[in-house]
Amino acid sequence: MNVQKLTPEAKASALAELKDWSLVDGRDAIKRTLVFKDFNAAFGFMTRVAIHADKHDHHPEWFNVYNRVEVTLATHDCQGLSIRDVTLAKFIDEIYSQ
Amino acid sequence: MNVQKLTPEAKASALAELKDWSLVDGRDAIKRTLVFKDFNAAFGFMTRVAIHADKHDHHPEWFNVYNRVEVTLATHDCQGLSIRDVTLAKFIDEIYSQ
Repeated sequence: MNVQKLTPEAKASALAELKDWSLVDGRDAIKRTLVFKDFNAAFGFMTRVAIHADKHDHHPEWFNVYNRVEVTLATHDCQGLSIRDVTLAKFIDEIYSQ
Repeated sequence: MNVQKLTPEAKASALAELKDWSLVDGRDAIKRTLVFKDFNAAFGFMTRVAIHADKHDHHPEWFNVYNRVEVTLATHDCQGLSIRDVTLAKFIDEIYSQ
């Protein structure tokens, strides 16, 4: 599917909205670290994100150790940030806040 | 639970057996990269490992992007490799080979 890089203006606006995310050094990507009660909670979160991600064919890069999950979002097709990353970040924020 | 570091002899013997694993630079830990057909297969594998890991209270460190999973195993309690890592590595090899 065709997907375009966010314009600088759209990126600034998205980052202002995604307060818990930050830009990755040297890459057009965003990241967030999430901490859970334990591994069960962390992997439960990952499973919810995985199902959502595969359904929308847009997947995170992520690292997990015990109760910590580090998520990086970028769009392979446009080699940078797209609206898909913003949508996935908002989904992640929403289920993390529950 | 008390768990001891592998002796140098036990570690050499374990590594000889775990042919697809290698030592991590600068850490007493082992790693393996696994590649799957797609994200669904990769996350399905991770889910099987996660359930096993939580049941045995011994968890991997892992990174996933799309169809690739990079697993690192070490034992927090002994700050190095223990028999638990060998057992988990064998479980991972077993389900990956299926």
